[in-house]
Amino acid sequence: MSDSAKKYTIAVIPGDGIGKEVTPWAQKALEKAAEGVAEFEYEKFDLGAERYLRDGAILPEEEEERIKKTDAILLGAVGDPRIKAGILERGLLLKLRFDLDQYVNLRPSKLYKGVTSPLANPGDIDFVVVREGTEGLYCGAGGAVRRGTPNEVATEVSINTAYGVERVVRYAFQLAMKRRKHVTLVHKKNVLVNAGDMWQRIVDKVAEEYPEVSHDYLHIDATTIFMVSNPSRFDVILTDNLFGDIITDEAGAVVGGVGYSASGCINASNEYPSMFEPIHGSAPDIAGQNKANPTAAILSAAMLLEHLGFDDAAKKIHTAVEADIEELGSTTRSTDEVGRDILARM
Amino acid sequence: MSDSAKKYTIAVIPGDGIGKEVTPWAQKALEKAAEGVAEFEYEKFDLGAERYLRDGAILPEEEEERIKKTDAILLGAVGDPRIKAGILERGLLLKLRFDLDQYVNLRPSKLYKGVTSPLANPGDIDFVVVREGTEGLYCGAGGAVRRGTPNEVATEVSINTAYGVERVVRYAFQLAMKRRKHVTLVHKKNVLVNAGDMWQRIVDKVAEEYPEVSHDYLHIDATTIFMVSNPSRFDVILTDNLFGDIITDEAGAVVGGVGYSASGCINASNEYPSMFEPIHGSAPDIAGQNKANPTAAILSAAMLLEHLGFDDAAKKIHTAVEADIEELGSTTRSTDEVGRDILARM
Ligand SMILES: CC(C)[C@H](C(=O)O)[C@@H](O)C(=O)O
Ligand SMILES: CC(C)[C@H](C(=O)O)[C@@H](O)C(=O)O
Repeated sequence: MSDSAKKYTIAVIPGDGIGKEVTPWAQKALEKAAEGVAEFEYEKFDLGAERYLRDGAILPEEEEERIKKTDAILLGAVGDPRIKAGILERGLLLKLRFDLDQYVNLRPSKLYKGVTSPLANPGDIDFVVVREGTEGLYCGAGGAVRRGTPNEVATEVSINTAYGVERVVRYAFQLAMKRRKHVTLVHKKNVLVNAGDMWQRIVDKVAEEYPEVSHDYLHIDATTIFMVSNPSRFDVILTDNLFGDIITDEAGAVVGGVGYSASGCINASNEYPSMFEPIHGSAPDIAGQNKANPTAAILSAAMLLEHLGFDDAAKKIHTAVEADIEELGSTTRSTDEVGRDILARM
Repeated sequence: MSDSAKKYTIAVIPGDGIGKEVTPWAQKALEKAAEGVAEFEYEKFDLGAERYLRDGAILPEEEEERIKKTDAILLGAVGDPRIKAGILERGLLLKLRFDLDQYVNLRPSKLYKGVTSPLANPGDIDFVVVREGTEGLYCGAGGAVRRGTPNEVATEVSINTAYGVERVVRYAFQLAMKRRKHVTLVHKKNVLVNAGDMWQRIVDKVAEEYPEVSHDYLHIDATTIFMVSNPSRFDVILTDNLFGDIITDEAGAVVGGVGYSASGCINASNEYPSMFEPIHGSAPDIAGQNKANPTAAILSAAMLLEHLGFDDAAKKIHTAVEADIEELGSTTRSTDEVGRDILARM
């Protein structure tokens, strides 16, 4: 290890299901890519379904405080069929995104050479979704009255602020400047007129500061059509928390499966650590079988490196992953085989 | 016209853009299919963008009252780029769906022989989406404070009632009994815990009355994946207003374009007329060019006939459409050519 290597603490939260199988490979890739330029210390957190079933803890304050002090977070996946939907998602994953103010949920989609898309004519797919991460319908503002009776009413409230929207809009335009200079706002402003109108106004305003960046607008429903009929039309997709959740899963499918899609939950003002995770879930159906593809998790390690400023180290991972997929993407391999193959190329 | 033919009044609202070009064909198909069994009188309503720009009227009370007295409604499409998003949609289309209590938004998706799906291996696609039509985020319950300032807050509220959910759930299970007996509830219950939990509880309860119908649950994000990776897994998809809007557009794309997808906004208790419309929009980019495919509009006429109980007449349309698509689906034809070709087969 070179003396000049910078030191970082990384919180590792493997979580549930296949999260536990793919995260070690993300860690190994991180380690190997950063050799000589950065030194990582890992702090592993036992959070997720098993911990919850054992002692009822989801995200104890003391542990969250320790996570807040790290430089970045590697997360596997959260969710377990034994536990009622929402408990772990809202108590752990979303709580971290919100408490650490990770307002940019960055989700690149790229069709790698060697991957078979379910589309007959996929074309060149290479876009990034900038999903807002701390507002909208994910706030948890909702409730129910007369639960369980024929008169029950349940609400969900989407909260959107100019403050929260403007910062993520600005991020998207800055990102577009480094790419093909096009931003597509995705919303449903013909129905969600309050939030949609605010998003559109803020986009129009921020766009004036980026005269080189063109921008257009699509309804979320129309976007799901273009995602299969012409995905190469997209460069930067900018959208809210829920629409971003939906469209990135479809995007993942279109580029050959969520097994190739990583994401970063980014606090772009760096007050708190950012978090990097594959976009796939805990996949209980294949968990524990050494079957899950660790590529997305490994790519999330590359996003972590980029976030810390180690672009060359990140590039090592990207190059290895691209070569691996091109040569072996269509073969059936175990989690460990894919991990070893990618590591061997780095 | 046979003396025993039943008489019905149909409200016709061609609306905007290509709506004006495809609706006459829906009307002609309706007329021809029902020859001898039903007699239709048409009441045409000049509603939509042009009317609004001319005299500011969107849906005058007196006209809505006349619409309410008809037996069914044929609608083209609503929306015009000259008018701020939401005005016509919420003032006309959604107002009709809500005021006429059209709580079942029925959207069949079928991959016809002769249609090229964008999927490489589409398989046999034949499912129906039962979308709730009178609740959720479409209620218009939301607002904004400090509009236009850096402190703006905009909200959108999803309102869901046990009353509204149970009736559409029941409809979906009844429909499944006539089909392959499987219902998939689509929601996002790991995040929208109040509404999602209520939907799931009501589905579980109603399912007990239909022991022959199996049911499962998918998150909306996962559903967008299955829609491209394995759409033949679906029989009846049951979902809320917004998720239904999104997933039916993706479904439309997967079966070769929304030009083949019709929908019914159904008041299943028959207090008010139901409304039948293609799921495509007004498509301003191709409007007035005799280019739009009238097939979806013609299929919406078939749905109207089924709703009134004329299954044989509806079948005539389906048979003609299927034959037309199989033989000529891949050729480029004008709106009028497709319309004439289908009519000629009936
Ligand atoms: C697990 C769930 C809460 C989460 C989300 O909805 O954001 C996931 O689907 C994702 O996209 O990261
Ligand atoms: C035009 C719009 C309001 C409408 C909707 O969102 O329901 C349309 O997209 C549809 O699916 O019928």
